[in-house]
Amino acid sequence: MITNLNNAKAGDLVEVSGMVHNVRVTKWGGFIILRKSRGLLQTVVSNDQCQIYNEQGETVALNDLCREMAVTITGTVGEAKIKDPAAFYKDIEISVSEVRVLSRPSTTEVVDMNALKFGDEETLLRYKFDNRQVTLRNPRDMAILKVASVVSKAFADYLTEQGFTQIYTPKIVSEGAEGGANVFKMDYFGKQVYLAQSPQFYKQIGVGVYERVFEIAPAYRAEKQNTSRHLNEYISLDVEMGFIKGQEDVMHLEAELLRAIISRVATVCEHELNLLGATLPVLPAEVPIWRLSKVHEILFENNLCEQDHRGEDDLAPEEERAICKYALEKFGSDFVFVTHFPSEHRAFYAMDDPEDPTLTLSFDLLMRGLEITSGGQRIHKEEDYRRKMIHRGMNPENFRFYLDTFRNGMPPHGGFAIGLERITACFLGINNVKECSMFPRDINRVAP
Amino acid sequence: MITNLNNAKAGDLVEVSGMVHNVRVTKWGGFIILRKSRGLLQTVVSNDQCQIYNEQGETVALNDLCREMAVTITGTVGEAKIKDPAAFYKDIEISVSEVRVLSRPSTTEVVDMNALKFGDEETLLRYKFDNRQVTLRNPRDMAILKVASVVSKAFADYLTEQGFTQIYTPKIVSEGAEGGANVFKMDYFGKQVYLAQSPQFYKQIGVGVYERVFEIAPAYRAEKQNTSRHLNEYISLDVEMGFIKGQEDVMHLEAELLRAIISRVATVCEHELNLLGATLPVLPAEVPIWRLSKVHEILFENNLCEQDHRGEDDLAPEEERAICKYALEKFGSDFVFVTHFPSEHRAFYAMDDPEDPTLTLSFDLLMRGLEITSGGQRIHKEEDYRRKMIHRGMNPENFRFYLDTFRNGMPPHGGFAIGLERITACFLGINNVKECSMFPRDINRVAP
Repeated sequence: MITNLNNAKAGDLVEVSGMVHNVRVTKWGGFIILRKSRGLLQTVVSNDQCQIYNEQGETVALNDLCREMAVTITGTVGEAKIKDPAAFYKDIEISVSEVRVLSRPSTTEVVDMNALKFGDEETLLRYKFDNRQVTLRNPRDMAILKVASVVSKAFADYLTEQGFTQIYTPKIVSEGAEGGANVFKMDYFGKQVYLAQSPQFYKQIGVGVYERVFEIAPAYRAEKQNTSRHLNEYISLDVEMGFIKGQEDVMHLEAELLRAIISRVATVCEHELNLLGATLPVLPAEVPIWRLSKVHEILFENNLCEQDHRGEDDLAPEEERAICKYALEKFGSDFVFVTHFPSEHRAFYAMDDPEDPTLTLSFDLLMRGLEITSGGQRIHKEEDYRRKMIHRGMNPENFRFYLDTFRNGMPPHGGFAIGLERITACFLGINNVKECSMFPRDINRVAP
Repeated sequence: MITNLNNAKAGDLVEVSGMVHNVRVTKWGGFIILRKSRGLLQTVVSNDQCQIYNEQGETVALNDLCREMAVTITGTVGEAKIKDPAAFYKDIEISVSEVRVLSRPSTTEVVDMNALKFGDEETLLRYKFDNRQVTLRNPRDMAILKVASVVSKAFADYLTEQGFTQIYTPKIVSEGAEGGANVFKMDYFGKQVYLAQSPQFYKQIGVGVYERVFEIAPAYRAEKQNTSRHLNEYISLDVEMGFIKGQEDVMHLEAELLRAIISRVATVCEHELNLLGATLPVLPAEVPIWRLSKVHEILFENNLCEQDHRGEDDLAPEEERAICKYALEKFGSDFVFVTHFPSEHRAFYAMDDPEDPTLTLSFDLLMRGLEITSGGQRIHKEEDYRRKMIHRGMNPENFRFYLDTFRNGMPPHGGFAIGLERITACFLGINNVKECSMFPRDINRVAP
């Protein structure tokens, strides 16, 4: 008797537990479609060869089974060709000899996970999020969040192999990292504190300790926009590395990290990618790296945008899409690094370019038309921080412990952050980033 | 020229970067003690064979180097026997041919990481926590948090191998999981919300989706006690598994998980364990499992406590210590599971024992005299939740989405949670759990 189906072959006796995803009754018996952790498993019941017991050990009919019962099934593995894309087990089915009901729903109106279809996407999403505690059991949503899980694990595994130390930094902080209005305030035993917008300060401190660090943790943005690209609580995949020669080292690490993540998802999540009809992005050996000014020029000279954006100090959305299209067609890359953004548009800790201090040694990484990460080299000298803070009207005294880090010596360093939900959405072609959060938080939603 | 010292052997040419942890000048030259990500590396400078360059490329003397400079050193590997327990590289040293200074502190009064000694432990700890951004660079603190990092990675790796899915659940919640006063409140766009005390509700929901889930994330307790065992923000290692036959399955999983973690720490963190003088706990093939009432009896009958605790409804601290001592002496185990705590002392979601509903199918795991985890089987039927809530004076309507989970069917399930800082402290023999948090938060401390 085996209990793990991964290496099951025809003729094996198995005992397998799962949730009843669906029941189909025929004249001779029927099918119990079992939901397992990765997807569906087809089991076949012949009335004359199968015993079904309820929780009290009484014999019942197939007809008495219903959706979302928890059951244990005993049977024999047979070969099959299952076409349902939600089936994780496509080559096997189970001929059932015994079913034992472990528990049952307390309503006869359980949500039908296969019937989550509404007139428009907005109504569907609202229903799904309002009932997330149950609609997550729908195979498509299971697949999305499984991929997110694999992405974050691959992130941790690759960086650990590369000598990075995983750190856990506080989310209750006394100073906002990026400043600005988008920060949640809270009372902490009579003192006003904030929820961390990012672990920026702490991961830089971590570089002075462990040379190379990463963190996987929630980050908070009190943004009032409620769009398909915003989450007020999201999982930030943060990296910071010391002893870099320049931002190129950071971009190189990020490209190799993404290569490892894409490779892992391709290997582990074949089922989920098929179910979602997703194609992983193409990451060539050399990802194009262009300055912002160069991107404006490429798009103008090739007549790829409606407008002339030369001289502008940021990328327009139509440029993000156009330069990604160009990079894919000309260089076979779904990714583009854009560098040298103007200093006044970047965070104060970005290192200014010594060759042109109005620009920074910082980058965005675009993927399939969207920015999925920001990064760059950071300032590592206390006096450079003080000068830039004062220039920006910030009070260095509000950043005492942060500045003390650099006062006590720091190597040249840089890093980046990736939003887990956003990169998952980009990988899978999901339009709304909220679908990649298990329990999304936005201005109108704080439950379930 | 190699840059990775892990397989370096005598005669190899190396280029290695790090922070200057210490400089010792002699008549013929001296030593630069370099701090790397895991600990110290000894390098030897002979004045007549070594060039030292400052950031401007000017030649300087060894005397001009100072602590917490970031440097790149070129040299030749030689054999050595380094006795300093803070040395990660104990068998090699580097004969330096060139030093390049990359950056330097902006103060001449950098913290001497080796001189963190004060009259009493309280003063030392306060100083360390007040200056955590720099004192983390002290090899002992580096070692503690490195072990914490390895513990959490081993936790994730083992559970992933066992088919668990890592989930990320919200920390901003509309309902407190355990209820009670120890919950941080905050304003969320005009609505009162809470910081999650635990992912209890969400990990149970996760079982209905993925069968087996785990989470590594911050948890919040607004406790006003400021003791060596409390943190207001800590990292909770959470596990929840479906289709269990009883709480024994949960205890078995936890024991095997701990075995994997201990084995990983023993392998990966030999240096850190030596530095900290720590001995990992002994986990036998069978960890003793005793009912609470049995523990009272064992201790009374063997005259191991000052007081007679029979009939009491919890473990007294002297009992926690005594039963652990007993288990180690009689059964060679640093761990003891204690089961069947009274229902009224456990959370409402604990499953009552059908044989005696005043007790629960729940457990504590003790290690070396301290409770490091609580767990057990959970209720999985909606009606059982409602009955217990009403009995306790709770309003089921305040738990709508939670109850809806069970209404829609849930398998028998259970789980547990381990505090990362607490288990790290127990492994390492650290008295104050705050030392196992990178940036501890207590009632008086929210910075750095």
